[in-house]
Formats: sequence, structure tokens, C-alpha cells
Amino acid sequence: MTITKKPYKGCRDFFPELMKERSFMFDKMHEVSELFSYEPYDGPLLEEVELYLAKSGEELIGEQIYDFIDKGKRHVSIRPEMTPTVARMAAQVYRETPKPFRWYSISNFMRYEKPQRGRLREFTQLNVDIFGADEHLASFEILDYFCTLLKSYGATKDMFEVQVNDRVIVDCVFKDLLKIDKEKSLKLYKVIDKSKKVAPDALDKMISEILSDKQIVDFKDYLGLKSFDDLAKFVALKNIDAANSSLIKFVDIINESSIKEFINYDPTVVRGLDYYTGIVFECFDKHKDNRRAIAGGGAYANLLQIFNEGPLEGVGFGMGDVTLRDFLDVHNLLPKISKSQSEVLITYFDQDCEEEAFKLAQQLRANKLKVELNLGVIKFNKVTKLAINKEIPFVIQIGSREKEQGLIQVRNMETKDSQNIKATDIKEIQKYIRGDK
Amino acid sequence: MTITKKPYKGCRDFFPELMKERSFMFDKMHEVSELFSYEPYDGPLLEEVELYLAKSGEELIGEQIYDFIDKGKRHVSIRPEMTPTVARMAAQVYRETPKPFRWYSISNFMRYEKPQRGRLREFTQLNVDIFGADEHLASFEILDYFCTLLKSYGATKDMFEVQVNDRVIVDCVFKDLLKIDKEKSLKLYKVIDKSKKVAPDALDKMISEILSDKQIVDFKDYLGLKSFDDLAKFVALKNIDAANSSLIKFVDIINESSIKEFINYDPTVVRGLDYYTGIVFECFDKHKDNRRAIAGGGAYANLLQIFNEGPLEGVGFGMGDVTLRDFLDVHNLLPKISKSQSEVLITYFDQDCEEEAFKLAQQLRANKLKVELNLGVIKFNKVTKLAINKEIPFVIQIGSREKEQGLIQVRNMETKDSQNIKATDIKEIQKYIRGDK
Repeated sequence: MTITKKPYKGCRDFFPELMKERSFMFDKMHEVSELFSYEPYDGPLLEEVELYLAKSGEELIGEQIYDFIDKGKRHVSIRPEMTPTVARMAAQVYRETPKPFRWYSISNFMRYEKPQRGRLREFTQLNVDIFGADEHLASFEILDYFCTLLKSYGATKDMFEVQVNDRVIVDCVFKDLLKIDKEKSLKLYKVIDKSKKVAPDALDKMISEILSDKQIVDFKDYLGLKSFDDLAKFVALKNIDAANSSLIKFVDIINESSIKEFINYDPTVVRGLDYYTGIVFECFDKHKDNRRAIAGGGAYANLLQIFNEGPLEGVGFGMGDVTLRDFLDVHNLLPKISKSQSEVLITYFDQDCEEEAFKLAQQLRANKLKVELNLGVIKFNKVTKLAINKEIPFVIQIGSREKEQGLIQVRNMETKDSQNIKATDIKEIQKYIRGDK
Repeated sequence: MTITKKPYKGCRDFFPELMKERSFMFDKMHEVSELFSYEPYDGPLLEEVELYLAKSGEELIGEQIYDFIDKGKRHVSIRPEMTPTVARMAAQVYRETPKPFRWYSISNFMRYEKPQRGRLREFTQLNVDIFGADEHLASFEILDYFCTLLKSYGATKDMFEVQVNDRVIVDCVFKDLLKIDKEKSLKLYKVIDKSKKVAPDALDKMISEILSDKQIVDFKDYLGLKSFDDLAKFVALKNIDAANSSLIKFVDIINESSIKEFINYDPTVVRGLDYYTGIVFECFDKHKDNRRAIAGGGAYANLLQIFNEGPLEGVGFGMGDVTLRDFLDVHNLLPKISKSQSEVLITYFDQDCEEEAFKLAQQLRANKLKVELNLGVIKFNKVTKLAINKEIPFVIQIGSREKEQGLIQVRNMETKDSQNIKATDIKEIQKYIRGDK
């Protein structure tokens, strides 16, 4: 029987080149998290299914999770998202942890999906949350973090935009203006959520099945809002009581900040039927070939309810590596990946120089130089080609003659300059390779 | 219904403190990998079970894997180890990849086990492999890497030892000296593997069930070997043909190297019935309270066979985070984890200073300073306590009076020194916090 060499459907083999790309993405996440004082956490790969049942929408539970019965008869699932886990963890410690506390994680997840552009079965997601801070301040900080992260990859305002809304406002529009009941509200939420994905005719039909003609006029006015200013005027004009919304204070901060250029109002952003209770946002790629959401998040208040714990306000967002990579790719923001990260290649031409070569490698590594040791004797005329193929900038050559004199030759592959240095003079070798750094 | 706050059995919640410990361990792995020119890779979380069936021992398949049927009727498993995956990946690219190639991964795994000290259901493992190099050179490099890694944590020769053997030698002893057939050889392999874990009486009984009295004398001589010198004498004395063993050339290199002090010969190390074909090794903790294997590995030649691919020699090792953590813990090598990694805490005393505080945070972060922004107005007399609790070394205070003068106050929490600096003079603020760095 021959076994397939391919990875399981919807999963990726991360060969070194792809892995370095991934590290480029993750390193910036760690860096920005530190700049913003977010602390790392992680949870288990498996959770019991009841955790997801308690929290999630039905779609995720029914179709998308990788659930199974373990050998001890527990119904478990590979994590499809981080939120239930972070809620479970926060529930354990939130009482004694000084607020606000800021957490982030970069973890792998699985969802049973049809693999397609921007969507795979296994993916990694960055999750960033701040707990126990005022909603408008927390929302600003989270979006500041998010924009700083995308800017750290080289993204500019031509490439992405963050669209913001507030579910408190939506609820006020439904209650104070449209005066519809809970059942209709739920239906209308779903319509809003789909409004950009369906044709105008289909949208009109969906709306007319829920609202009266008079209500439709108001609702369409709402859907037509294009800016925070529009919203402010609309709220005033229609006598909507938005006292419980944090959006106005949030907009005040945004308007004075450097991330203003990335943030817009969008009445259609509601984040599905998810657990959000306040400000919500989605980040969209502006590129014509990749019009899709890169990340999304918002404010929530009742995440700990399923654990019988009190309210804990939080604001957070999640961003997957598959969509992020597509975004970076389409905007040419992925770095050129060098074949090797080594600073120097050590080669030897005679068997009796092997010991010297190994010792030198150890000593240079002890001085934090990145060394690739060529294992085994190599012919002199093959060294250059090897170093060029591997893109290693310096080569050390050890031959019998040099060995007798206690010397090695260090060569700069770019300038073709070379120098004989005492094999024991590690500092001098290091200086030649690194300059005066 | 109330949901449990506990993680799934045998899994860990990595709260920030534990996560920083984990980062400490993983960062060194990445660092040493770069020093040795090993390139990062990763594989999927799930593999089809036939991959493990083709490769693994039966125990792992029957009892220990987290296998299930996915929604598309594929029989899959959460990865219990990396070797089958790395073999699958190497099989895809080994023809066109210049040899040797060096790969490492740090990935999460699951095994259905009874959780106990040193063993959990979910763990992370470092896997390091070099493919396509001579066995003795590759084995030396892998052990050099391993010892360098443990030394980077502060470990010394009092704390660990690496015990080495060669399965080629074991096979020669079985064939040339004991003259036993394949069936008895397999049984005796299992006995060797268990020899240190069972009482002498039990061991004798197991041996006497396989070997004759005369054979037992020779076999016990073998089990009594205590050093590479012992082995050399034994091989000469008993006329064992060890020409196919790489161990002697390996020992020559070891004897001339700085890692000599960590390496010993041990006739009982065979690494079970696993896929190894040559040099094998295990690293043991020397601490009396934690006598256990920290890592293990060896040389293998036929890993690609199940893919109908030709031989590819490799040497590698794996080390789990659970056993590594226990090792570091018992030897007091885990670092003190600071509560916060932030360099400065920004605070403001009046609502009308909020904008300044937010702007300053953005500007300092743009200059790569790690900033925690205190969200919301704080009372002057609470700042010191907050900074001390969070262990943040510098505090910036912004009040209305200072704002009028365009100044902020920066305070060194350790020296209690403070200075008023122009809020726009980011370089001066940075200099005060970082010194001249």
C-alpha cells in the first residue's frame, strides 16, 4: 500500500518558505502586542462540545465543528474559534485580576469547511481582547492596535478600511423608530447582515416581508447612512434615544487620533447573531481582487453568563492567517523570503580539518553567529556555488595548509573580498562578518 | 445549565504567566535552530490514520491516538507525533532539495493518556531533523544542537546526560555473538528496552525465557558495558564485526568536542521498536526527584519507504514541553516571570488630558516603546501603587497644569527620580526611559 504524500484536505504543509512567511506575520503580532501591553495566553486544542453549544450559533455547532466522542466517552471538539475558551479562562480569574486586563493569542483552529480562497479547514487566528475597560476607550485601543498591526506590515489607507457600527444604535432604531418586536428584530438583523451580499431586488423582498411600507422608508434611510456625521444627524432627526451607546464618545476619540483615516461608519455591520452587545467592526480589504473581510470584532458584556458569572465588559477582535496572507499577497506586502538565515558557511577541504571546522562552528555559535556547517569534505571549486545557492553571505574555508599556519580564510560573497584570520581569534572573525556591530 | 470552567482533561490553560514560561522555552529553541541553520516547518493538525498505521507501533494506534471519522467519512487523527508528518513532507521535496537539509518544528500534539507527572494529553514538542548527511556527522550535529539548547537554559553536566547506543551494534551482538533468529531478536529488543525499569529478578526471568545459559553470559556482559571504551574492548574481544556501525567515527568526533562531558554509552538504549536504524540516544535528567527521559532520537534510513520513495538518511530528536518544563523546574532554571513587559505606564488625571495621553501613547509606540495606557482618569495618589503592582518601571503623568505648559512628567519608579519633559519631545522621553540605548 502506498500512502498519499498530500496533507489532509483543507490543511497546509508549511515548508520552510511558507513557514518564514508565517513567522513574518506572527512576529509582528507579538511585537505590536508588546507595544500595547497585551499579554500572551493560549488554551487547549480540545474543548467539550457543551462549551460551544452554550455559546455559539447553531451553524457552527451543526456543520462546522470537528467533534467526536473521545475514548472516555466525552463529546469533544477541536477548537473552531477562541472566544468560548477565552471566556472560560477569564471566568476563572477575572475576579482577582486587576482590570483592565489585556490578552492575546495566536492559535490553530479547525472548521469543517469547503476549502476556497480565504478559507481553509485549518487556520491560525490572532485573538486580541481587553476586559474590564470602558467600552469607548477599549474599542479605540483595540482599533488602534489593529491599525498599528496592519501598518506594521506596510498597509496604507488605500488598502484597508475599518467599518464600525453599534448594536445599541441598531436596537434603538428597531425599538424607537421602527417599533418592531423581538422576533422581527431578529429577522431584520439577519437581513442587515446579508444586505451587502444580496442583489437589491432580493434585499427589498426580504425587507418587505418583515416591515410595513412606512417602516421601510425609515429603514432604508438608516441603511443609506454613510458616515458618523450622517448617523448623528439621523439620530437627532428621528428622535432616537442613543444615550446608552458608546459610539459618540468613541467617535470623539477617533476624530482626534491618527487612525481616523482608516475608520468609517457602516450601518450594515452587525456581526451576525453573535455575542456582541455594543460597538462592532469589520475590516475590509479595498483591493478589487480581494473584496473581503480581513478581521472583525466588537464589544460584548455577557460572555461569562454561561458560567454563572457576573458581567465582564470586553472588546476584542480576531484575524485569521489565511485572509491576512491573501491581503498581504494581493497588496505585495509579503517580504522576499531568503533561502537561508545563516550568516556564514563553514567548509573544509581535508578530512583532517574536520575537527577544526566543528570547533570553530561551536565557538562562533557560542558568540551568537548563525553558522551552517558543511558536513563532510567539499572540493574547493564547489564552495562558491554552494554559498550562492544557499544565499549565505560569508564563507569560511579551512584547508590543510591554513590549518598548519593556524589560519582560516573568511570570504565575503558579495564583495569577493577575503581575509586570512587566526582560527582562534573569534572576535576578529565575528568583526569581519558582522562589521563593527 | 452551568458549564465547567476547567479545561478538558490532560490539557492546560496557558494563562499569561505560564505562557511567558512557554515563550522562554520556545524562544531558545528558535534561537538555537537559527544558530545551527535549521529551518522552520510545520504540518497539519490532522492526518489520515493510514499514515500512522503505516508507520507507528501498534500501541500508539490502538490506545493513544485521538482518531475519529470526519464529516466526509475520512478516518483521521489529531497528530500524536511529528515523524510521520515530516516523513510525508520530506517525501514531497527531498529529490529537488539540496542535501543535507535541516528542519525543525515546535507543534502541538495530543495523545490519549492518563495524565501524570511529565505526561499530559496535549503537549508541544520540538522536533529537529537533518536529512541526507553522513550518520556520524549528522548525529554529532544533532547532539551538539541538543546540548547547546539545554546549556542555553543554564543546564550543566550535573543536571543531564545523553546516553548513546547504536542499533547496528545491537544487531551484531544478536547475530554474531548470540546467534539468535529474528523472532528472538525482537523479543530481546523489548527486554533491553525494559531492562532499567524492571527488578533484576524479573529481568533475569525474561532473559532466561529467550536465551540459553551460555548466551545469557554473553548478553549480561553486553548489558554490563559502561563506556565507549568498554564497548570497543567488548567488540574486539568477542570478534563482533561492527564495520557497518557509524558509532566509532561518531565517538572520535565526540571525544574531540566540548559536548563530550554530556555524552555516555548505554547498552540499554534502543528506543523501543521504533523506526531507528543506527545511532540512538536518550537524554536523562540526573536530578534524584525527576529521573526520567527528557528527549530521545536517533538515525533512521527508511522513513520514506511507506511512500514508495528511496532511502533518505536522517537523524533527529524530539523533546516535549511537559518534560522539559519539569526538568527546568526541578533544577531551578525557570526564569522569574515579570508581571508586565511594559516599559512605561501612561496616566492622566483629568478628562481633558485624555487626548494628549492617547496621542503620546501612539507616538511612543511608533518609536517601539512598550506602553501601557491607563484607560480613564486616575487619581494622583493611586498611580504609584498601580505602577508597583504592575511592575512597570516608568510612569508618565499628564495633568491639566502640565498640559497648559505642554509638559509631561516622567517618573523612574526605582530611583524615584522624575523629570518634566516637553510632551512633543519623544526622543527625550525615550532617552529618559531607555537611557542612551
